[in-house]
Amino acid sequence: MNKKKDVMVSIVMGSDSDLSIMAEAAKTLDEFGISHELFLTSAHRSPERTASFAESAAARGVKVIIVGAGAAAHLAGVIASKSALPVIGVPIDATALHGLDALLSTVQMPGGIPVATMAIGKAGAKNAALFSVRVLALEDKKLSAKLSAYIQKMALDVEKKQEKLTTS
Amino acid sequence: MNKKKDVMVSIVMGSDSDLSIMAEAAKTLDEFGISHELFLTSAHRSPERTASFAESAAARGVKVIIVGAGAAAHLAGVIASKSALPVIGVPIDATALHGLDALLSTVQMPGGIPVATMAIGKAGAKNAALFSVRVLALEDKKLSAKLSAYIQKMALDVEKKQEKLTTS
Amino acid sequence: MNKKKDVMVSIVMGSDSDLSIMAEAAKTLDEFGISHELFLTSAHRSPERTASFAESAAARGVKVIIVGAGAAAHLAGVIASKSALPVIGVPIDATALHGLDALLSTVQMPGGIPVATMAIGKAGAKNAALFSVRVLALEDKKLSAKLSAYIQKMALDVEKKQEKLTTS
Amino acid sequence: MNKKKDVMVSIVMGSDSDLSIMAEAAKTLDEFGISHELFLTSAHRSPERTASFAESAAARGVKVIIVGAGAAAHLAGVIASKSALPVIGVPIDATALHGLDALLSTVQMPGGIPVATMAIGKAGAKNAALFSVRVLALEDKKLSAKLSAYIQKMALDVEKKQEKLTTS
Amino acid sequence: MNKKKDVMVSIVMGSDSDLSIMAEAAKTLDEFGISHELFLTSAHRSPERTASFAESAAARGVKVIIVGAGAAAHLAGVIASKSALPVIGVPIDATALHGLDALLSTVQMPGGIPVATMAIGKAGAKNAALFSVRVLALEDKKLSAKLSAYIQKMALDVEKKQEKLTTS
Amino acid sequence: MNKKKDVMVSIVMGSDSDLSIMAEAAKTLDEFGISHELFLTSAHRSPERTASFAESAAARGVKVIIVGAGAAAHLAGVIASKSALPVIGVPIDATALHGLDALLSTVQMPGGIPVATMAIGKAGAKNAALFSVRVLALEDKKLSAKLSAYIQKMALDVEKKQEKLTTS
Amino acid sequence: MNKKKDVMVSIVMGSDSDLSIMAEAAKTLDEFGISHELFLTSAHRSPERTASFAESAAARGVKVIIVGAGAAAHLAGVIASKSALPVIGVPIDATALHGLDALLSTVQMPGGIPVATMAIGKAGAKNAALFSVRVLALEDKKLSAKLSAYIQKMALDVEKKQEKLTTS
Amino acid sequence: MNKKKDVMVSIVMGSDSDLSIMAEAAKTLDEFGISHELFLTSAHRSPERTASFAESAAARGVKVIIVGAGAAAHLAGVIASKSALPVIGVPIDATALHGLDALLSTVQMPGGIPVATMAIGKAGAKNAALFSVRVLALEDKKLSAKLSAYIQKMALDVEKKQEKLTTS
Repeated sequence: MNKKKDVMVSIVMGSDSDLSIMAEAAKTLDEFGISHELFLTSAHRSPERTASFAESAAARGVKVIIVGAGAAAHLAGVIASKSALPVIGVPIDATALHGLDALLSTVQMPGGIPVATMAIGKAGAKNAALFSVRVLALEDKKLSAKLSAYIQKMALDVEKKQEKLTTS
Repeated sequence: MNKKKDVMVSIVMGSDSDLSIMAEAAKTLDEFGISHELFLTSAHRSPERTASFAESAAARGVKVIIVGAGAAAHLAGVIASKSALPVIGVPIDATALHGLDALLSTVQMPGGIPVATMAIGKAGAKNAALFSVRVLALEDKKLSAKLSAYIQKMALDVEKKQEKLTTS
Repeated sequence: MNKKKDVMVSIVMGSDSDLSIMAEAAKTLDEFGISHELFLTSAHRSPERTASFAESAAARGVKVIIVGAGAAAHLAGVIASKSALPVIGVPIDATALHGLDALLSTVQMPGGIPVATMAIGKAGAKNAALFSVRVLALEDKKLSAKLSAYIQKMALDVEKKQEKLTTS
Repeated sequence: MNKKKDVMVSIVMGSDSDLSIMAEAAKTLDEFGISHELFLTSAHRSPERTASFAESAAARGVKVIIVGAGAAAHLAGVIASKSALPVIGVPIDATALHGLDALLSTVQMPGGIPVATMAIGKAGAKNAALFSVRVLALEDKKLSAKLSAYIQKMALDVEKKQEKLTTS
Repeated sequence: MNKKKDVMVSIVMGSDSDLSIMAEAAKTLDEFGISHELFLTSAHRSPERTASFAESAAARGVKVIIVGAGAAAHLAGVIASKSALPVIGVPIDATALHGLDALLSTVQMPGGIPVATMAIGKAGAKNAALFSVRVLALEDKKLSAKLSAYIQKMALDVEKKQEKLTTS
Repeated sequence: MNKKKDVMVSIVMGSDSDLSIMAEAAKTLDEFGISHELFLTSAHRSPERTASFAESAAARGVKVIIVGAGAAAHLAGVIASKSALPVIGVPIDATALHGLDALLSTVQMPGGIPVATMAIGKAGAKNAALFSVRVLALEDKKLSAKLSAYIQKMALDVEKKQEKLTTS
Repeated sequence: MNKKKDVMVSIVMGSDSDLSIMAEAAKTLDEFGISHELFLTSAHRSPERTASFAESAAARGVKVIIVGAGAAAHLAGVIASKSALPVIGVPIDATALHGLDALLSTVQMPGGIPVATMAIGKAGAKNAALFSVRVLALEDKKLSAKLSAYIQKMALDVEKKQEKLTTS
Repeated sequence: MNKKKDVMVSIVMGSDSDLSIMAEAAKTLDEFGISHELFLTSAHRSPERTASFAESAAARGVKVIIVGAGAAAHLAGVIASKSALPVIGVPIDATALHGLDALLSTVQMPGGIPVATMAIGKAGAKNAALFSVRVLALEDKKLSAKLSAYIQKMALDVEKKQEKLTTS
């Protein structure tokens, strides 16, 4: 299994076909130098693997769990029911209903067990990573500075794209 | 716990507020003389209770599990991932989205773990019971005869209601 | 017609364009060695063929009927109104509305006549077969053992895919 | 049964709870002096009653069939599959999904068997009657004149309501 | 303009991009030997053309008007407000919303002015033609016989496709 | 008719039952001292009245037309097709579909004839008035100053409500 | 930055990937000889740039602001909260939800701050330009005449396309 | 203003009518002894108040911002664009669309600025508080223990409710 030492963020997905989406989260965490792992497990096809992952994550030092899943996306909710860590859900567009099923299955959690839901697909995967950074930066001044720089750079990138727009 | 001996059908619900809906299933099973139990457990708030219920149901002699849940309704899927029995899901209208969330969370199960989904609400609870009867009647001639009579009576009831319609 | 002797599961579809979807059900039943037939009939274009199929299925020894249909998918409901067997519906994405029409037409059955609805498309067709296996395994220990092995293999497959993920 | 002689339009409904909606169709047909009947039958609970109704309607002299149904509203489609008469469908808001299920189940008929679908609820029931009038008026000059007068009166009624609006 | 003499059915569309869909209606009317015309007009871009078409259709001998339109599909409703003929609406999938906008804009007509709505797209265009046939056949025994034959052929076609399914 | 002299904004509605919603627009225009009229006409039931209203509005000095309508809300689009004035549409929740039908019928106008669509219901009616003010203020410095004051007051009102929140 | 002198209409977009859509607005304004600028800014990634743009637009002489944005499309609302000019929103289909998210995020503005919402995508971008023309034409007789000619030409274009339809 | 010293969590809402929903978050934070404040500001009606709140929150010591808003719910996104703290969004059912507008406006944030979205309404407000606890517990062992106890108590509460169910 892909369990590196001192993993801060675990990126979980319900199917290997979700990898192209969830890689966006990994890439963004890399930009911040945050250690992470990719973990594959299904809420339904491998429930014990899912349970043992969730139950041991905190003890392994994981701080935040990001979960991508499509269809009747139960994985984030199931993990949140077995771990007290912050769990971030990324709904994936994997069926004829274009991710609306995954969105509602992830976000409409009943009171008691929260899942922090992001947008459907790649934007959501990227934002799941950035939200993890916001959480981890609360107690890490270096990371907080990196985050501020990242946010400023985004604003500058918009200005640069304007230049291209204007000269084209 | 409400574990009667020789329970054929277990009626599970995720919240005690679902009882008024799921009672429709119990009432219908009573009409067929099928023993049943009411079991309360949450996929998220009581995951271990849910797991131990699902893992032991077949050994206790349960043949069919009916599960009612609202919101991000994971309960039927979670139980189906831990029991090889036929699991029937009843989506419940419990949020601002009027059961569409529960419907999609229940029916859009990925390949591998099936949940037999019924209509949202009371009609679904009643039909969950009737579907259980159809399954159990495959190997029970007496029950099969009761089911035929029930189906015929439904047709007769329509004719009787016509009479009222006409004379009113 | 494709009526083999001793057919346990009948796979019905409303249009020959549904075959690529419903073949997933046939393939899965083959994995379990369950005899099945493919039957083409339309609720609307061939109502008598549909009725005579439904009315004779139980007498032919069929135990479970799987029905795939798109658009205003009435076929599963119509068959369930003429046969007391368990009927499983698979909504098919066949129109501009991406299967939402077929899903609602199949699942929202009024109280009295149940249709066990699966997910839209191939995942639903596969799960329809697996749900049939769950029903048939209730009285067939060999099949029950196969089902347990199948479920265990799914969990192992997840672990194997993890390995690929990690080494890639 | 409510089979008057020389019935021109048959108003069918799937449940006696649909009567308050479908009465709007009857009332509108009365305004035009068109003979009609109210017929209760369920596509699913009384399929034979439905079939014999549909198969005999043309021979009884019925010209147009109006069908109101809610939930997975198969009734109009089933009748249209057994009668070559024009069939008009009125979706009824009878479930948590507020008639969207009935609308899609009625309107999304596959090619071959048409159902002329009206709006959900009372507006649809009234318009089903008015559409019947438009069909019957094609070969009935008196009715055509009544229809023209009705249409003119609607325009005048708008002007009258303006007066109230202005003076209030 | 494409105004043939003795046109029985007028097929109207809101944009020339709708032609590939509405040609399905023309083709089906041809199978029944029903004279028809194709007429292009926009509810919004050419309102006067639309009004003069609608106001003169009945006097030209047209019996039924079929209208295809996408987006905020007002065309069928606008024509129905200016002609007392039966108007059949075909919603077209022409925007990002996949025809849901056209469907609701066509079917949800307020009480007073009916539009007989068919399914979105080609199935709807074909059924609009078949519904016209059902209306015209009320007073035309030859057409009625053709319609019966057409309906029987559809049922036979299903059986033939079964043969292919079985032998493949 | 309610045609005051020097009416700047015309508030049109498709049904007198829309008055309670559209009164919100009138009230807001009153706050800015903008003269307005209430006009009742239906796109479908009184098409000529609608046409003559739209065709004469600009000549009467009207600058902006606000149109509220529910169901298949064609009224704003029909008026915009007959007048070159800015037309603002307010979708009204008048059917089982809770205004989604009116929203899509109003906003999804095809290219060529714009309707400026506001939110469903009272918020939309109020904003239709405020958008009219924004348009009229372009050439009216007094009105522009009133608008600035209105906007500032809204911000102050938020602060005042905070005080209540805090002390309660 | 692309700030031409005497810009009448500012076309703002939230991402450079929206350019192909919003170019439709620029092209249409060009047809009317209305000066415009293209401005790129994100409500979220460059909030200060957005605020300073909105706060200075009126002083720069801009009369109307057109804003295209996808996903949770806040840009039009944010600009309307910082400028008293008329703001027109164009929802863009940029996510798995096909623009429904952008439509609702743009149109459902609460009472107080209006955004004039157009259709999703290119039709909406074109209509945003045409609505700007309608606003600007209120005080510009030359532009008003151009608009009338444009509207007449649209009607003629429909007739020309009819000719092609007929002869093909 | 309600700015207590050492506030850990700020609960922001867009309208005082959201208070009954957001009070659920406050109540839950109280159970954990986490200091919080209630802050009222509108993304649109008081944009400067919103900006200055967001820009100063981190400096005031706030760790997590919870934001409830309805309709085109831009408030959470706007705050997240001006603060690097974790922002949690609670969509509120405040319009005819039953919170679907608020959900999509909150969750579908484009890549770059994350909003952690919870369920619509009270369940979401409660879970926003519980998610804040999960974040704060990462660096607070006492709070972590309280959270574990809370989670265990939820499981016990399910068992207690079972007892009532059984004895009733």
